[in-house]
Amino acid sequence: MAPQYAPSLRSRLAPLLLFVQIGFIFIYAFYIEIESHVKEDGISFSNFYAEFQDVNVMVILGFGFLCTFPVRYGFSGLGFNLLVAVMATQWAIILNGIESWYYRGMIRINLRSLVVAEMCSASALISIGAVLGKTNPVHLVLIALLEVSGFVLNEWLLQALLKVQPLKSIMLLHIFGAFFGLTLTWILYRKGSEQQFEKEKFDRKTGLFSMLGTMFMWMFWPGFNSVLVDNHRPGRKLGAVFSTYLALAVSAVTAAAVSVLCSPKGKLNPIHMQSSILAGGVAVGVSMSVVHQPWEAMAIGFTAALVSTIGFRYLKIHMLLAFNCHDTCAVLSTHGLAGLLGWLAHLLLQIKDCDDHTTAIRFAVFHICTLFITISLSLSMGIITGLLLKWNFWRPPQDKKCFDDQAFWEVGNQDLILLQLWI
Amino acid sequence: MAPQYAPSLRSRLAPLLLFVQIGFIFIYAFYIEIESHVKEDGISFSNFYAEFQDVNVMVILGFGFLCTFPVRYGFSGLGFNLLVAVMATQWAIILNGIESWYYRGMIRINLRSLVVAEMCSASALISIGAVLGKTNPVHLVLIALLEVSGFVLNEWLLQALLKVQPLKSIMLLHIFGAFFGLTLTWILYRKGSEQQFEKEKFDRKTGLFSMLGTMFMWMFWPGFNSVLVDNHRPGRKLGAVFSTYLALAVSAVTAAAVSVLCSPKGKLNPIHMQSSILAGGVAVGVSMSVVHQPWEAMAIGFTAALVSTIGFRYLKIHMLLAFNCHDTCAVLSTHGLAGLLGWLAHLLLQIKDCDDHTTAIRFAVFHICTLFITISLSLSMGIITGLLLKWNFWRPPQDKKCFDDQAFWEVGNQDLILLQLWI
Amino acid sequence: MAPQYAPSLRSRLAPLLLFVQIGFIFIYAFYIEIESHVKEDGISFSNFYAEFQDVNVMVILGFGFLCTFPVRYGFSGLGFNLLVAVMATQWAIILNGIESWYYRGMIRINLRSLVVAEMCSASALISIGAVLGKTNPVHLVLIALLEVSGFVLNEWLLQALLKVQPLKSIMLLHIFGAFFGLTLTWILYRKGSEQQFEKEKFDRKTGLFSMLGTMFMWMFWPGFNSVLVDNHRPGRKLGAVFSTYLALAVSAVTAAAVSVLCSPKGKLNPIHMQSSILAGGVAVGVSMSVVHQPWEAMAIGFTAALVSTIGFRYLKIHMLLAFNCHDTCAVLSTHGLAGLLGWLAHLLLQIKDCDDHTTAIRFAVFHICTLFITISLSLSMGIITGLLLKWNFWRPPQDKKCFDDQAFWEVGNQDLILLQLWI
Repeated sequence: MAPQYAPSLRSRLAPLLLFVQIGFIFIYAFYIEIESHVKEDGISFSNFYAEFQDVNVMVILGFGFLCTFPVRYGFSGLGFNLLVAVMATQWAIILNGIESWYYRGMIRINLRSLVVAEMCSASALISIGAVLGKTNPVHLVLIALLEVSGFVLNEWLLQALLKVQPLKSIMLLHIFGAFFGLTLTWILYRKGSEQQFEKEKFDRKTGLFSMLGTMFMWMFWPGFNSVLVDNHRPGRKLGAVFSTYLALAVSAVTAAAVSVLCSPKGKLNPIHMQSSILAGGVAVGVSMSVVHQPWEAMAIGFTAALVSTIGFRYLKIHMLLAFNCHDTCAVLSTHGLAGLLGWLAHLLLQIKDCDDHTTAIRFAVFHICTLFITISLSLSMGIITGLLLKWNFWRPPQDKKCFDDQAFWEVGNQDLILLQLWI
Repeated sequence: MAPQYAPSLRSRLAPLLLFVQIGFIFIYAFYIEIESHVKEDGISFSNFYAEFQDVNVMVILGFGFLCTFPVRYGFSGLGFNLLVAVMATQWAIILNGIESWYYRGMIRINLRSLVVAEMCSASALISIGAVLGKTNPVHLVLIALLEVSGFVLNEWLLQALLKVQPLKSIMLLHIFGAFFGLTLTWILYRKGSEQQFEKEKFDRKTGLFSMLGTMFMWMFWPGFNSVLVDNHRPGRKLGAVFSTYLALAVSAVTAAAVSVLCSPKGKLNPIHMQSSILAGGVAVGVSMSVVHQPWEAMAIGFTAALVSTIGFRYLKIHMLLAFNCHDTCAVLSTHGLAGLLGWLAHLLLQIKDCDDHTTAIRFAVFHICTLFITISLSLSMGIITGLLLKWNFWRPPQDKKCFDDQAFWEVGNQDLILLQLWI
Repeated sequence: MAPQYAPSLRSRLAPLLLFVQIGFIFIYAFYIEIESHVKEDGISFSNFYAEFQDVNVMVILGFGFLCTFPVRYGFSGLGFNLLVAVMATQWAIILNGIESWYYRGMIRINLRSLVVAEMCSASALISIGAVLGKTNPVHLVLIALLEVSGFVLNEWLLQALLKVQPLKSIMLLHIFGAFFGLTLTWILYRKGSEQQFEKEKFDRKTGLFSMLGTMFMWMFWPGFNSVLVDNHRPGRKLGAVFSTYLALAVSAVTAAAVSVLCSPKGKLNPIHMQSSILAGGVAVGVSMSVVHQPWEAMAIGFTAALVSTIGFRYLKIHMLLAFNCHDTCAVLSTHGLAGLLGWLAHLLLQIKDCDDHTTAIRFAVFHICTLFITISLSLSMGIITGLLLKWNFWRPPQDKKCFDDQAFWEVGNQDLILLQLWI
């Protein structure tokens, strides 16, 4: 007979976390120092600190609360998100500094390094959206570490092979994260999830928590997209903020309209709204460097919300039935499709700006190569990670414990939980 | 027999949203450009961005979560607030730029324009508080567009006729929004709401979400009031922040004391607290330019909370029974009375500062005219909008579907909602 | 027979609040003025405003939502926190200015005074965590006023006797608040709380609200620790932010690992996580001025989370059974132990940096005296306050009304609450 209780993670999670964390402390002790020159790029400390907080809010509160919608999985959604985010950030700081370590023997970090590292960890959090509820925290930590490694490798490859600027390659985080997550969930597919998981549902209150996360992401997305834009040429940062704001605004309206249109009863779907009002931010983020006019950003936001809402409505179920790919948070439509759309918009706008055919074709080839490398690396890292995680050694949760806090948290089965005093 | 289901909005909401949104994109394409000079008023981009975010948080999170208290209306409260806010903001950017378009053929926008536009949309969100739960999203979008038009017209009239500074006329948003909303809910009165609507109640959890919204508004109000104060004379911005903070602090204490005093059992009322701790912010916002001493702000906050709590306790029910005016979020006591009190405080403090009688009387006449124009315009726009919305073409929700998400969202009747995969 | 209903606070709470508040307004009217020179320490207004908001968010949202976990005590947790915070802040502004009033006859306040006052009020909020649910708002207001007085007295004593810098003495707020709260809850001990209070439990939704508070504190702690660090020597502020961030990150990972290790079933405990992921921030805050390397902060965070999680698991119940000390929010492990650890880390790191034995010993003596004075004053103020509060005049809630909103709020017994229109 199958075991009645969720397998204990005591001998897996605790050693893994302690080992990795103590390892990080040693690496930081020997190789990392804080850069004392705080004025850089003409931005003083205090200003940049506020922008860092915007990214921080998005990564911790935004992604965290976004994952609280399953009715019995709120603690896991929020708690594991924090766990994964801080481990991925610490790891990304190390990986991003490897080059500087190679040349100088030390890694110098400043607030900018922290922001870049949080963006790498955002990429891991997107992947995790696809496997949410069907994995245990050991899986999630491994996914985060491997995904971040893959993402930093991708950035390095793009720079080494194609001289892609860091800002552009970082913004590919949506595409990299989405396809990595999809591959992962495809490999980790469980028989029986054509029918829904027993507990994969939301109620009014968890839906509101999830809306809270969405709102945080919606509001701080302009900061997220503009934080790494340098301020040397005045107006570029303002342009990034404006483009993102307008794209998000148009996204929200379009998502509502399309959601009503797609519904036979003419009603809005809260989950569509949650995914699709963010699509504009993704698409503009990817194409930001060539968006100069407000209407371009608005048109991109419009198309992104259109594609994302329709993708959610018809593609999610198709992915599940045809490709055995169960994508919990619909990262394909929110981040994957919107990211690809942003990539396409970048291509079209850049070609429009080119004076002659040669430059245009050269740019198109370069741009297609960028995407090709990113997707290939994302898929192959996803396959490697997926195969590693299939190993039963990691004690995956049983099907009936999916989407259930009870498997990982001392919360009891009841709705009311006595404070655990008597242990 | 009456229809069992809420009328479908498919053929009303979707075309309206798409038409307006695509119209906005075209207007933005031809007439709007981003101003590239970012340094203005001695405030660099990054600083102003943080202040913009404060306003953004108030408008999106604050107003949004404030409206989640009805127990079955959380998705609507939050979702429609976002929808209305982004449409009103886009529209206000256009309207505020009409003068510049007239003279230069183009509208130049910067972060300041966005902040001003969000304040105009805050005025529409206040109006919507009065009709919350008894309208559908089509109504709300129309209200927002008309209210913003009226508010911008009022601002223009005040400037053209009385040379009122923009900062002062914007701060009248509370008075304009409150009276507009009250007229609207008076015209849209439904028979049968002397008894309460079936679903107009809150529970512990939705009450907490609503408290979250209140807290966000409470915290970011100093930013909201001070954002447009220019920094030329040092200390004025600091003064605005301090005055607002102290007024809000005193409001919170006073609201608690008065709520306990008014209650026969000596208990606090959560809804009183939510309305009245914000009254100080409203009153100081309206009178800000003449409040120089901390104690003046504190006294204004004290009186505002007193008036607002007593108004809520005795006036709300009176308005309903005597005037057929069902004011869901009590905008009369929170924004209307507190706004009028702020106006009065402005008058008294200014007169106190005047040296001779002539100036004092001249100012009093000018100040009364300002209020008179604002209220007249607000009431007449409210009547026009109300009559337009009474048209059954817009498919208003039936009485028993009021305050119910189910009329507009695919959430089912149950408390648990399966993720809508199988459509 | 015992009374069936909670005792009415009408004749206690309202007069107290009104008397104190009106008293504050008079004091502010005669003795307080706003400082108009806004540029100080090279930090312009706008920058400092953003940092002030960080502290504000922590105090109002962070502490507030942290206290919402008891399933029937959400409104009280959040509402009384706001009430106490604003009264304590107004009082602390006055107390901190007494010296300046003595010499100049007036108290000049600026944003920095407000930040310092909010930190003093944070210290009161920590104490309140220990008695949460077992007191009424009259108690809480008295606790806040007395605790803040004690804390400011401690700061003044440390400066007068030992010349401790204000920054260091303020950071002792965790130790002062925790021991004050523990003494208080020891004196106010109720027979029968060896068994749990009937309503001292949380459910999934209130647990998530409480997690929201924790996340806010986690995110804005770097701002809280760095806000008072001056920016004269570049990099010091950055160092404080970095140290706090890393300590918190390591805390989160360590708390998860230790919580799993301590649990027989290998599960995480949400309450452990909530307390212990913050321990790193406390410990680094206390030792901040001598933490220069990232790894030092990480090691402190690691130890703090270890001590705090183990303290929570084994010490909380021991304190209750052996010492009759019922510590609702576990302030001993979160703030007390972590604060002492930070103090110890400060001692060790400073001694390590000393060149000769004499200086080291001299510093150790000085450092031990600092702690000794703080704890003595904290304990004695706690005893005085506790004895005052034992007086039945304040109408403490009955045992069965502990942890129940119904005793203080018009919320009815049901889960659904009709809007109180018909009064």
